[in-house]
Amino acid sequence: QLLEEIVASFHRKVLAGKRVLVTAGPTFEPIDPVRGITNLSSGKMGYAIARAAREAGAEVTLVSGPTALTTPYGVHRINVQTAQQMHDVVISHIRDEDVFIAVAAVADWKVVNASEQKLKKNTEGDAPQLQFEQNPDILAEVAALPHKPFCVGFAAESENLLQYGEEKRRKKGIPLLVGNIGHQTFGKDDNELVLFDERGHRRLPLASKQNLARQLIAEIAERL
Amino acid sequence: QLLEEIVASFHRKVLAGKRVLVTAGPTFEPIDPVRGITNLSSGKMGYAIARAAREAGAEVTLVSGPTALTTPYGVHRINVQTAQQMHDVVISHIRDEDVFIAVAAVADWKVVNASEQKLKKNTEGDAPQLQFEQNPDILAEVAALPHKPFCVGFAAESENLLQYGEEKRRKKGIPLLVGNIGHQTFGKDDNELVLFDERGHRRLPLASKQNLARQLIAEIAERL
Repeated sequence: QLLEEIVASFHRKVLAGKRVLVTAGPTFEPIDPVRGITNLSSGKMGYAIARAAREAGAEVTLVSGPTALTTPYGVHRINVQTAQQMHDVVISHIRDEDVFIAVAAVADWKVVNASEQKLKKNTEGDAPQLQFEQNPDILAEVAALPHKPFCVGFAAESENLLQYGEEKRRKKGIPLLVGNIGHQTFGKDDNELVLFDERGHRRLPLASKQNLARQLIAEIAERL
Repeated sequence: QLLEEIVASFHRKVLAGKRVLVTAGPTFEPIDPVRGITNLSSGKMGYAIARAAREAGAEVTLVSGPTALTTPYGVHRINVQTAQQMHDVVISHIRDEDVFIAVAAVADWKVVNASEQKLKKNTEGDAPQLQFEQNPDILAEVAALPHKPFCVGFAAESENLLQYGEEKRRKKGIPLLVGNIGHQTFGKDDNELVLFDERGHRRLPLASKQNLARQLIAEIAERL
């Protein structure tokens, strides 16, 4: 904590007086009381961004899916499990925020016929029949608010990132989209990013997620 | 490490010269390159048992699904993701083992039509159609081997544990089954157990998972 505080004191307070809401980690969509659908997001990039925003002087709220990470010093963390819960927490807090950075790998679908009892294997080998329904699109919903914060989205695509990144930015209606070069980044400590904005795209070369998070916070601060 | 070594030196070496294989954690069954089905197992109970077995003098191999836990000192850990991978590692090692303790919460089903590309949401709201197939039953397969180790199973049931525990023990063909009182134990540091054997059942009252693990290792050592 003391070390984090000292590190923070050396950073320029480019977000002083600003409120930043960050989502991070995967979501977990229950199938029954113990099973569920999730993804390989570790939460590292989102936590690094929350920490960098706080170092830059912002008041930071971190809405986090299940991760094994420690909350960055001085950051207010709210834990959620499902995409719907993440949506509800974000929507109830977003009114007062200046910046919204949607880093979480939110499940696109939820299981509508989740079981209240643990599903059992039976001798016939019958498999569960899961029915899915789309989850709310948190980022698109925030970006469509009349008094919206500055919105930043993330994309993790397994192919055609350059083409898909700009499409996604326009479709979501956001000024800045951050693309991960490949989904191989999940769980890693290093990453490579591409920033998409109305002027085009720009690469942030391979670096630690914490270093990239600081660069991203500087880019956001310039745009406010 | 030094502390763990000192702690271990105070324990009776009831498993000296024995080889113990422990499975722990959840498994992760891919749906596509980033998504998958998992469960809420933290791996804590399995890791505590691996540590207790090693304290008791055993040579311990820990076959672990994805967890955020640190490998106990002196334990040989092999990481796996899917139930099939856990099966293959266990079967290739089991020949030399004296005790097999199946603590992992292994997925009963795998997704047979997993996608090689990340599934995309489309505007029609089409949901993925997942087809499932039963995974191999690792414990039952080991318990059916001609030269089998002493086999210990775990059950985490949301209801009727006392009835279901004994049924499961007989069906799997194992001498000792350990029941968790409720699946609420997932992720917790404390637990309550019920041991089922041919003589009946016996409760191990609420205690830390590490304490319960040591009691369980003592129970196993008495039966070898």
